[in-house]
Amino acid sequence: MENFIFQNPTKIIFGKGMERQVGKEAAAYSKKVLLHYGGGNIKKTGLYDTVVASLKEAGVDFVELAGVKPNPRLSLVHEGIRICRENNINFILAVGGGSVIDSAKAIAMGVPYEGDVWDFFTGKAELKEALPVGTVLTIPAAGSEASTASVITNEDGWYKRGFNHDLIYPRFSILNPELAFTLSKYQAACGAADIMAHLMERYFTNVRNVDLTDRLIEATLKTMIHNVPLIMEQSDNYDAWAEVMWAGTVAHNNLLNTGRIGDWASHDIEHELSGIYDVAHGAGLAVVFPAWMKYLYKHDITRFAQFAARVWGVDYSFRDPERTALEGIKRLESFFVSIGLPVTLEGLGIKDDRIEEMASKCTNDDRSTVGNFVKLGKKDVAGILSLAK
Amino acid sequence: MENFIFQNPTKIIFGKGMERQVGKEAAAYSKKVLLHYGGGNIKKTGLYDTVVASLKEAGVDFVELAGVKPNPRLSLVHEGIRICRENNINFILAVGGGSVIDSAKAIAMGVPYEGDVWDFFTGKAELKEALPVGTVLTIPAAGSEASTASVITNEDGWYKRGFNHDLIYPRFSILNPELAFTLSKYQAACGAADIMAHLMERYFTNVRNVDLTDRLIEATLKTMIHNVPLIMEQSDNYDAWAEVMWAGTVAHNNLLNTGRIGDWASHDIEHELSGIYDVAHGAGLAVVFPAWMKYLYKHDITRFAQFAARVWGVDYSFRDPERTALEGIKRLESFFVSIGLPVTLEGLGIKDDRIEEMASKCTNDDRSTVGNFVKLGKKDVAGILSLAK
Repeated sequence: MENFIFQNPTKIIFGKGMERQVGKEAAAYSKKVLLHYGGGNIKKTGLYDTVVASLKEAGVDFVELAGVKPNPRLSLVHEGIRICRENNINFILAVGGGSVIDSAKAIAMGVPYEGDVWDFFTGKAELKEALPVGTVLTIPAAGSEASTASVITNEDGWYKRGFNHDLIYPRFSILNPELAFTLSKYQAACGAADIMAHLMERYFTNVRNVDLTDRLIEATLKTMIHNVPLIMEQSDNYDAWAEVMWAGTVAHNNLLNTGRIGDWASHDIEHELSGIYDVAHGAGLAVVFPAWMKYLYKHDITRFAQFAARVWGVDYSFRDPERTALEGIKRLESFFVSIGLPVTLEGLGIKDDRIEEMASKCTNDDRSTVGNFVKLGKKDVAGILSLAK
Repeated sequence: MENFIFQNPTKIIFGKGMERQVGKEAAAYSKKVLLHYGGGNIKKTGLYDTVVASLKEAGVDFVELAGVKPNPRLSLVHEGIRICRENNINFILAVGGGSVIDSAKAIAMGVPYEGDVWDFFTGKAELKEALPVGTVLTIPAAGSEASTASVITNEDGWYKRGFNHDLIYPRFSILNPELAFTLSKYQAACGAADIMAHLMERYFTNVRNVDLTDRLIEATLKTMIHNVPLIMEQSDNYDAWAEVMWAGTVAHNNLLNTGRIGDWASHDIEHELSGIYDVAHGAGLAVVFPAWMKYLYKHDITRFAQFAARVWGVDYSFRDPERTALEGIKRLESFFVSIGLPVTLEGLGIKDDRIEEMASKCTNDDRSTVGNFVKLGKKDVAGILSLAK
């Protein structure tokens, strides 16, 4: 186990009807907030009205900024920063899924910074302060509601880049599983793939003696494998959604990577896919992750066999662990297929003619690598994407 | 799953040599602290010198209060409160195990309160504020390093009572598994029993649809079952201690009871044992918990069978789940025996002549009950203690 520091201060407010507390929670930070959300969906479901009523009741004034798209854009972040500055707003309330929350975090980073907020995503600047952010989550997926991460797409070149910092843990996040009932099956499946990817990115590590976190990750994955199919059968299954929603937060709140070093190559490769083709992040991950596994499972057959046996219940072959390892990858792929996700580029509607370009962007023209479990250059990334054809 | 609010702000600083950072961490809160510890043990191991050097280097002045005993006493808490008031101290640094940390928390509660701090433990007063506390942990056991709990023994009547409040989460806790190397096998085993008891108290619940937390608890128990025997074989096994130490914190930091209602009868019953006989808390739990299980497993055979199958790897009997359930209890008992713990009152050196008295004290003369999984009156508590003879 590696030495580590862990402190996650996000206050989780979980359960039925909890979104009605948002005004009270926000009021503890500011009497004027930026209300940030996506499209008309929260208006259709009535969540918008509930949030606005709660803010008004708590005496919290707000300015709205809607229009966050999946793979949230830098231009809207710039607009949010401008609005906050012009209106002396010092708290951002995100109502939506990971894209809205990531966008809110980027705005929170940008307001007190004199340069372009994109500097943080390219590593040009170091974050010193950020406005506080609160969230009402509608899609269990990105885990952004209790994470240090924000992922933004710069339309100038379609670069999708992630940033991590303790200063952007949300101060509070309200999680009501009922708010996920209106998601389509495809949205739910994409969210599930994202959550499972967060767990697997952490699972595949070269750090030895990480027994507790191994088992906690396995436990969370098994929870997903058991409950996601229940949601596919019945979209208003509160109990199953509650498990998936809480698992989505636990998967990405940094507890499960204490003492270990995660991989994250699949996320980096997928960012090129969704950066260029604007596909759903979870669907991209369902394509990339199994290919990533097939490309490099020989690096540590024991770990892949453990994944197969403990997570997927594959009968461990003492004489042929490689077979066990491969069976685990197959089960993952079959699971994604069973919940309606693509597992090939073709299934995503993507031709294979820009693989070289993506591999090149991903590795900074082969001047850098992605991943920690195995460090991958341009050729490797192209190889993985080719396996995903 | 029940609605819940979860926020654990404790900063965990984990790993080799991390105790050298204590001065810097404490300095963020105060330039004058109460240095609270037990006996001469931290002087023998050199930890005292390291802590003092680190405080001095960070310019932190301190007043010492040593003398915390296992089952920490109210009289010493009173002394700590007096010292803090007289010296204008507003930060308590606990260096030791759960007893020291619990004592520090009680001092932190008492300093700003005008009445007797015992009022909080009897429910007579409501906690409004507390001084901040930091810890350097030496014994993985109580989980107090990241919990809301403090347990204090009032020598006037030998009442041992627990108190829980979000205000007494430590601000930081330093966990270096090397500091546990000098524990005796018996101390290590008692700590392990305490950790496992914290997990089992949470596990046995009547709340349905708690799949994720069920599995996380099972994962943490399996980590204990795998690693504790490694420590028994080799007291300086860093990797195994690291798993046990981190498991001890995770077991009690309130993540694993999100959305569920734990039992806690075994803890309440054990408090009577250690209150009267001053036995080690973990040893008392190793005696009480299996007896508690035998007394009431029929309340929910399915849950006990799940415990047996998932935690202990008992082959699930589809035709006779009760047999599976009973086998799980046996395995727990055997595990305690295998690490050198008593599982009977006799083994603890306690005669059975004060069972009625303990049952009476525990249930407030049968006017109240203990436990949530099954609510137990005086007769039940006496029945459990009799099963433990």
